[in-house]
Amino acid sequence: MANSKATATNTLLSRFEYVKDFERSDYLLPNTWVVVRIDGKGFTKLCARYGFEKPNDRRALDLMNAAAKAVMTDLPDITIGYGVSDEYSFIFHKTCTLYDRRESKLVSTVVSTFSAYYVHLWSTYFPDMPLAPPLPSFDGRAVCYPSVQNLRDYMSWRQVDCHINNLYNTTFWTLIQQGGMGATEAEEFLKVRDVASPSNVKLLTDYPQGTLSKDKNEILYSKFHMNYNNEPEINKKGSVVFRDYELVEPGSDKVAETIDDLAEPVTQSKTQAENDKKRRAKARIVVEHLDVIKDDFWDRRPWLLSNKPGKIPKLT
Amino acid sequence: MANSKATATNTLLSRFEYVKDFERSDYLLPNTWVVVRIDGKGFTKLCARYGFEKPNDRRALDLMNAAAKAVMTDLPDITIGYGVSDEYSFIFHKTCTLYDRRESKLVSTVVSTFSAYYVHLWSTYFPDMPLAPPLPSFDGRAVCYPSVQNLRDYMSWRQVDCHINNLYNTTFWTLIQQGGMGATEAEEFLKVRDVASPSNVKLLTDYPQGTLSKDKNEILYSKFHMNYNNEPEINKKGSVVFRDYELVEPGSDKVAETIDDLAEPVTQSKTQAENDKKRRAKARIVVEHLDVIKDDFWDRRPWLLSNKPGKIPKLT
Amino acid sequence: MANSKATATNTLLSRFEYVKDFERSDYLLPNTWVVVRIDGKGFTKLCARYGFEKPNDRRALDLMNAAAKAVMTDLPDITIGYGVSDEYSFIFHKTCTLYDRRESKLVSTVVSTFSAYYVHLWSTYFPDMPLAPPLPSFDGRAVCYPSVQNLRDYMSWRQVDCHINNLYNTTFWTLIQQGGMGATEAEEFLKVRDVASPSNVKLLTDYPQGTLSKDKNEILYSKFHMNYNNEPEINKKGSVVFRDYELVEPGSDKVAETIDDLAEPVTQSKTQAENDKKRRAKARIVVEHLDVIKDDFWDRRPWLLSNKPGKIPKLT
Amino acid sequence: MANSKATATNTLLSRFEYVKDFERSDYLLPNTWVVVRIDGKGFTKLCARYGFEKPNDRRALDLMNAAAKAVMTDLPDITIGYGVSDEYSFIFHKTCTLYDRRESKLVSTVVSTFSAYYVHLWSTYFPDMPLAPPLPSFDGRAVCYPSVQNLRDYMSWRQVDCHINNLYNTTFWTLIQQGGMGATEAEEFLKVRDVASPSNVKLLTDYPQGTLSKDKNEILYSKFHMNYNNEPEINKKGSVVFRDYELVEPGSDKVAETIDDLAEPVTQSKTQAENDKKRRAKARIVVEHLDVIKDDFWDRRPWLLSNKPGKIPKLT
Repeated sequence: MANSKATATNTLLSRFEYVKDFERSDYLLPNTWVVVRIDGKGFTKLCARYGFEKPNDRRALDLMNAAAKAVMTDLPDITIGYGVSDEYSFIFHKTCTLYDRRESKLVSTVVSTFSAYYVHLWSTYFPDMPLAPPLPSFDGRAVCYPSVQNLRDYMSWRQVDCHINNLYNTTFWTLIQQGGMGATEAEEFLKVRDVASPSNVKLLTDYPQGTLSKDKNEILYSKFHMNYNNEPEINKKGSVVFRDYELVEPGSDKVAETIDDLAEPVTQSKTQAENDKKRRAKARIVVEHLDVIKDDFWDRRPWLLSNKPGKIPKLT
Repeated sequence: MANSKATATNTLLSRFEYVKDFERSDYLLPNTWVVVRIDGKGFTKLCARYGFEKPNDRRALDLMNAAAKAVMTDLPDITIGYGVSDEYSFIFHKTCTLYDRRESKLVSTVVSTFSAYYVHLWSTYFPDMPLAPPLPSFDGRAVCYPSVQNLRDYMSWRQVDCHINNLYNTTFWTLIQQGGMGATEAEEFLKVRDVASPSNVKLLTDYPQGTLSKDKNEILYSKFHMNYNNEPEINKKGSVVFRDYELVEPGSDKVAETIDDLAEPVTQSKTQAENDKKRRAKARIVVEHLDVIKDDFWDRRPWLLSNKPGKIPKLT
Repeated sequence: MANSKATATNTLLSRFEYVKDFERSDYLLPNTWVVVRIDGKGFTKLCARYGFEKPNDRRALDLMNAAAKAVMTDLPDITIGYGVSDEYSFIFHKTCTLYDRRESKLVSTVVSTFSAYYVHLWSTYFPDMPLAPPLPSFDGRAVCYPSVQNLRDYMSWRQVDCHINNLYNTTFWTLIQQGGMGATEAEEFLKVRDVASPSNVKLLTDYPQGTLSKDKNEILYSKFHMNYNNEPEINKKGSVVFRDYELVEPGSDKVAETIDDLAEPVTQSKTQAENDKKRRAKARIVVEHLDVIKDDFWDRRPWLLSNKPGKIPKLT
Repeated sequence: MANSKATATNTLLSRFEYVKDFERSDYLLPNTWVVVRIDGKGFTKLCARYGFEKPNDRRALDLMNAAAKAVMTDLPDITIGYGVSDEYSFIFHKTCTLYDRRESKLVSTVVSTFSAYYVHLWSTYFPDMPLAPPLPSFDGRAVCYPSVQNLRDYMSWRQVDCHINNLYNTTFWTLIQQGGMGATEAEEFLKVRDVASPSNVKLLTDYPQGTLSKDKNEILYSKFHMNYNNEPEINKKGSVVFRDYELVEPGSDKVAETIDDLAEPVTQSKTQAENDKKRRAKARIVVEHLDVIKDDFWDRRPWLLSNKPGKIPKLT
């Protein structure tokens, strides 16, 4: 029961202790952003069993977000989270030294905390459906990203993936639920028309890259009588979780450009570290459904990349 | 919600997908025993908060064991578990190919499943103490052991450690609870007398190695009026969890000696694999408090090392 | 010039020393056999440049073997080597603790030593062809094998590979050199007839597995007027390098069966270790062309698996 | 002899091929600078054996530099090298994809090539001292650095280390060679006076950080009658090896600041890549003894960080 551990040696103990030498060290490369991504295990079965609505069950998404918020409260070293469907990514700042950056510790702690809250909060979101074994569980892994650009590209990757999958699934389930098609029929319909298949879909928002158009939306509208733009933001964009400070005027801060210059863990004064900790604890953790691909999101929230807490916004 | 994932490419997606190349492969060495050990995080605080009894809280131990049983039910690839205090070790057979032996997958799945059940079953064991944030959580890591001897030495190491810590803690808390000492006083008392300090304690059972004696027990008895031998087995030996088949006469089976010769994953016929799976599913998973250091435990349960299910015992 | 290194700290030095934290530890799993295999880099070009004879250049093979012997002399921790063509495998015993089993150290030392001797001894084997840049070089990697069976299977794999490639190449070059075919023609000839293509060739020796026949040899003989059996052993079997002690009567020693039981580095007395070292230094390192697939090779040379030096054979 | 390898399967071969699954993947993290540092093995003995001059043997340093130049000629992916005493660091650009960034391949190839040239060129620098076994050899390891600042700090670390060791060794050997002291006496003398011990020595050049002074130099001059400033640059600064292009006016290029923004391997047109390759091959590789700690070195040679070849300087 978490009693004090013996550190000293004992004749018999010392005969077996050599087995400790088989443990491998797994420190993640310093000065890199650590992404821990967790994924629901066997959620297809789980969805069926508890009757999750298709293509998106709002209660299930809210439960994921509630668990993510709790993880970020318990682990203040996480600066931002991004969730979609049954997966969630948590980002540790590149200067983070939690558990000496040991991979197993970081991954297992995030996964364990998330799983605990998911089960604990289940009844809040599914009051009429008590959990029974096998319980929902998650696996996880860590990936290191050396630069801010890599990290942002990772976030963009997940959000583009969210969009593509959601557009496809929305169309697919509309065909079934409103069009009366069967699953195979709907799949075939989409394949033949090559309309909303994940492979050729374009993002609906305007990107300077010019690769994105609004055409598909019109096609979807005319063919399937649905306006994808009116779909809930949580489905189209996924969920971003972060500590809320006062927004900053874009352009007034150059965090994204300078943060890569940071070469090693900042040595803060103890007072400064304490202050930062307090402000972080005070900050509200919010769940929003914003575009994380464009610069604007990052420019207005410099604390996400700098890891320096901003101003606590006044309540209005 | 576990909808079908897009596998195809998209212009924008492909711009970001390079971030997948930053993932590292983490396959564990084939033909080695994989031990996943999990540990409670910050359980000292947890013990205090929920008033766990000292030095051992039976409800808390039973909850750990219940969670471990559930883990082994959900993950039939685990052949044996060993738990003490707030830690649990789970062993995957050296031929196991679950998740292609990917370390992150194995560790995170075990940790997640355990955490989920720990929280889910909490109210069964602590009906009057509802859980509140921060919830209990666990970290975990994997270690590979090449030979049966290494694996058994690992198990012995944990059990000797259990014994040493329990003997010390039992004495320590007796001094406090029955002797009216304070924590510092008790610690000092034990240090000065050098009696039951973890460093010089000997195991109380008879080992052929001759390094173990019953003397300490008598000292403990005369000084502190407690007979360590009468302490519950669960405290002295920890808990072993495994599938229960008919015991085998020692000497009739040479598993421990021959299992190291197994060089690669056995290629079973499909029927055989199905049969094994069914028998495994049918077997009762039991929690016992046995000596896992001596040969007897392993000799009588050859299925633990061979991974071939034994005979289902008849109910009496 | 290998002067004493400063270990103390300096103001400026300490500003930069954090970069040492980026080094990863790379200890290889204890109690496993370590195979370091090296491969010639760009040897196709090298062969052409220095006019190596096809399919086997005896001088080049002898040079490889001479370099391998020198490596084993300089690194007594290597118990056995196996070479074919421009590759060589060196085996460190599973109890080996050289360089604390650090992978980079082991691999780079073997590769460096081999390369140094290859260049140094070049003129002995190719007296008329002075080396010029770019010099021959080798890459290398380490692989761990948990059991004797794994290790022997590794050795068998390399020797079967040697056989298959040599049989194919011998036929291929006979068609060109004696049959007057061009390279493409010879390749096509072999593909159509499906005769000696690496995919369907059978080993020529008798194996209990029954998968091997002498038929192919006859086909080769009648079609291409060559008797593969008369080819030099070095080409057919590759080269095994090891320390030479008195052979042991097969069956009198059970090394292969018991060596897996060894769970941890043996703690020898200092005198014993010194004695072993001396005997090892005294032993002649020999290059032979033997079958390493069958048990006989290992049974008669128990020191290869036990790592205990045998008796130095008397000179006759 | 680098004949074509069989890729197809064979009954016996396939029985053993499972051993390939024991190979671990070792791709280094993308978008990081890869430093491969090699170190002479047992060079203390080597120095004694071949009578290297103390504290610095010019022939030995020239041989190291000649081998390093050859390595960089054979491996154009290396952008810069830095050598001191019997160690050499080679830097691969963060966008480098040689051997898919496999650690073993990179380390072993550098070590092998260096060793081959060291032995091959030995007689040029030590014409009167033929090499004999055991031959000189080197070990090596790879370290990844995520940012330009990390990389420059690594280079600075090695150069400060060079300075500190050289100042100490120069003083130490002056005491012996000119002062007639014994080794122990000299060591004691330096320890007592705390004068030139590596721990408190300051760099002799002017650094904006203000931590460096010229005082020590004067102390050294008055006490030991030697002017450290007059020592050869190669001893004081070590050797930098790089491709020589036209120097750039400092400030006209912002490579160091922008190179961190590069997030992934640049996709060049084939023509561009070919052009770069040709220019690189045309560039002279030079060995210089410059200060690599200050910005000036890097600002004037933007190609070192950008990996884009500069202008070939006109011969005058």
